[in-house]
Amino acid sequence: MSGTAELAIDAAFAARLFDELAARTGDAPGITRAAYGEGEQIAHDMMIREAQALGLTHRIDPAGNLYLTYEGRDPALKPWVVGSHLDSVPHGGNFDGAAGVIAGLCAVRALIEAGLRPRRSITVMAIRAEESNWFPLSYLGSRAALGLLPAESLSTPRSDTGLSLRAHMSRLGLDPARVGVGQVHLDPAELHGFIELHIEQGPVLEAAQVPVGFVTGIAGSFRYRAARILGEWGHSGAVPRGHRHDAVFALADLITALDRLWGEVLEGGESATITFGEIGTDPALHGFSKVPGEAGFCLDVRSPSPACLERIHAGLLHIVAGIEAARGVRFNLGARSGSAPARLDEALRARLAAVAEGCGAGFTELASGAGHDTAVFANAGVPAALVFLRNQNGSHNPDEAMEMADFAVGADILARLLARDDND
Amino acid sequence: MSGTAELAIDAAFAARLFDELAARTGDAPGITRAAYGEGEQIAHDMMIREAQALGLTHRIDPAGNLYLTYEGRDPALKPWVVGSHLDSVPHGGNFDGAAGVIAGLCAVRALIEAGLRPRRSITVMAIRAEESNWFPLSYLGSRAALGLLPAESLSTPRSDTGLSLRAHMSRLGLDPARVGVGQVHLDPAELHGFIELHIEQGPVLEAAQVPVGFVTGIAGSFRYRAARILGEWGHSGAVPRGHRHDAVFALADLITALDRLWGEVLEGGESATITFGEIGTDPALHGFSKVPGEAGFCLDVRSPSPACLERIHAGLLHIVAGIEAARGVRFNLGARSGSAPARLDEALRARLAAVAEGCGAGFTELASGAGHDTAVFANAGVPAALVFLRNQNGSHNPDEAMEMADFAVGADILARLLARDDND
Repeated sequence: MSGTAELAIDAAFAARLFDELAARTGDAPGITRAAYGEGEQIAHDMMIREAQALGLTHRIDPAGNLYLTYEGRDPALKPWVVGSHLDSVPHGGNFDGAAGVIAGLCAVRALIEAGLRPRRSITVMAIRAEESNWFPLSYLGSRAALGLLPAESLSTPRSDTGLSLRAHMSRLGLDPARVGVGQVHLDPAELHGFIELHIEQGPVLEAAQVPVGFVTGIAGSFRYRAARILGEWGHSGAVPRGHRHDAVFALADLITALDRLWGEVLEGGESATITFGEIGTDPALHGFSKVPGEAGFCLDVRSPSPACLERIHAGLLHIVAGIEAARGVRFNLGARSGSAPARLDEALRARLAAVAEGCGAGFTELASGAGHDTAVFANAGVPAALVFLRNQNGSHNPDEAMEMADFAVGADILARLLARDDND
Repeated sequence: MSGTAELAIDAAFAARLFDELAARTGDAPGITRAAYGEGEQIAHDMMIREAQALGLTHRIDPAGNLYLTYEGRDPALKPWVVGSHLDSVPHGGNFDGAAGVIAGLCAVRALIEAGLRPRRSITVMAIRAEESNWFPLSYLGSRAALGLLPAESLSTPRSDTGLSLRAHMSRLGLDPARVGVGQVHLDPAELHGFIELHIEQGPVLEAAQVPVGFVTGIAGSFRYRAARILGEWGHSGAVPRGHRHDAVFALADLITALDRLWGEVLEGGESATITFGEIGTDPALHGFSKVPGEAGFCLDVRSPSPACLERIHAGLLHIVAGIEAARGVRFNLGARSGSAPARLDEALRARLAAVAEGCGAGFTELASGAGHDTAVFANAGVPAALVFLRNQNGSHNPDEAMEMADFAVGADILARLLARDDND
């Protein structure tokens, strides 16, 4: 590393961008940047403006992903891609996604200000539509970039407008006809590596009292989004215990048994989460004096280990069969969905850790239970890293918080890695 | 017993009344006889017509309860009152309530046809508004008759019309100003006894293969109709197990622990039911990938034993405290409501059993988990009996069923008891 000035992140520059984003996409409480909507486009336009001010080139692919490139000294070398997404959940927080794009811009800006032009080009990527509540598709933008999004996904309606993804793309002047499997706009074979900075969305770094975490793997999942238990309705006073087929007791059996299995899995040294995010009896049918004949639930199980996912799934089926026999109820789990876990690049993680140690930054390693675009790059064969930034109050809510000092530590580590010419 | 003909229930007469009721109050699926509504009034008017045909006197009290009296030979003796209610739940079955009134009419008719006039008068009572889904008040009509209904209950709106109980009474030409605590229209001290026939609404008689059951006691209850558990919302992938405050796991803990306690209570020889009729996360807040920060439930616990109710309630509070400590959640149980258990008259039950044995009718004894107007009479000091009729498919639903042969067995036992002059 050599240059005319010290390499340093300008936290005030980042803070101004976050403030402008919050002001222009505010939707009290919190902010809203709908995928392919107004707030996301405002964020994209802001990033283009900042890239132009820094003298970067910019390119927009047919799906609307944005590439801001600081050209390296050696155009023959594969570039780094660093970035994240710019959409948010409705009434979400300002940092989820945007922090990774702004960190990339800050890192490049620090290099330029320090007079450093590394050998490899650096592309800051602003990815479209990562939050699946707008379109129920995982990793929409990154899959579109890498030619992995099925063309039929273009017919998916956005949850709020009811308009198709295709229509939303067209409204923004994009080119949905060029989006689909095999239409590659960012060739994974031509990338040196992908690095995403993202707020943690959980309490691990806060508890460990470190500003950053290097992610070892991104959890895969299996999900039952609309499972039902069918028992038998009855009068709460008139049907004795031995005659009951109570769907709610059956559901409680299931939750309690999976909770026990979860504990055993963790004690065995594996990593997993189990969540029943939605449960309920049907308000049109239930009553406080009725034995519930039906209950619904959805189940989200995540683990970075495919074997662990399968172990829990086998446990689920075993538990369900036992409850069916014991209570005379029937489970209808419905369709199973899910995603594959992603293994992140160990060598790249080690280099990031070495940089962090070099700056005296505290860090830890952890698995990511949440999905991130990094998983798409990793599973496409790109050496990939995910850096978590300590944050408060979770994410996907207006109270989401992040200290700018922690952001600066993450962006600094990124800048110092990108500055190295010996990083192959 | 003496007379000109054999005492016999005319099942065809009863069947014609049930058929007419079903035809005139049908509301597919099932029947609807709203309390103080059109269907209930049709049923009351039919009973008056039949009483007149039999030469009975009739009286209507200010709350609309109907008294059809077959005068006894000795006017100085306290009368029997036999009866039940004529309202139904919406889209309910034809027998719940009506069977008890028609059984009383059939018994009196059998006495008259057999040329029998017992010493005591017999009053067939058609009680108003027993089903609490119309007005959320337990035992509305019978409490009004006995001067036990608080006058402020008259302001309660009916769940479907929103009109007050007072307005509904006035519409029917009744006299709500004369309804209230202390305004006694049927003096419990002046009654010889109260007998109600009612379909079982449960599977016990069907399983025991007997047509009738004599009820030992009517369960009391405690209820929490709007309880909540408050935990902490989080990202289903990002919040590890040790950091969770999951309201749904807490609810499952509660249900599972109360299920275990319920088993212990029954093994100890006590009688009780425990039902979580309504549970759920809030659709406006929950999500399949969110750790649920809130869950609601309602709990209905019934037992004929006050001590057993208190034991379960103490167990509930102990379990709740344990879950709060273990999971870092907070329970808000809300208001406790409930009713007192009723002990039914042992001597009267023994006489009914003796009559059944005399006719060779199979029977059993059982507790009633469901509430019935009989409880009001029993708790007011009237010697009271409740006779269950075997029925199929529960009640409060269109599939509710009853065999006319079983009905005839019950009405026959009633007629034979009422015919006895030595029954003091």
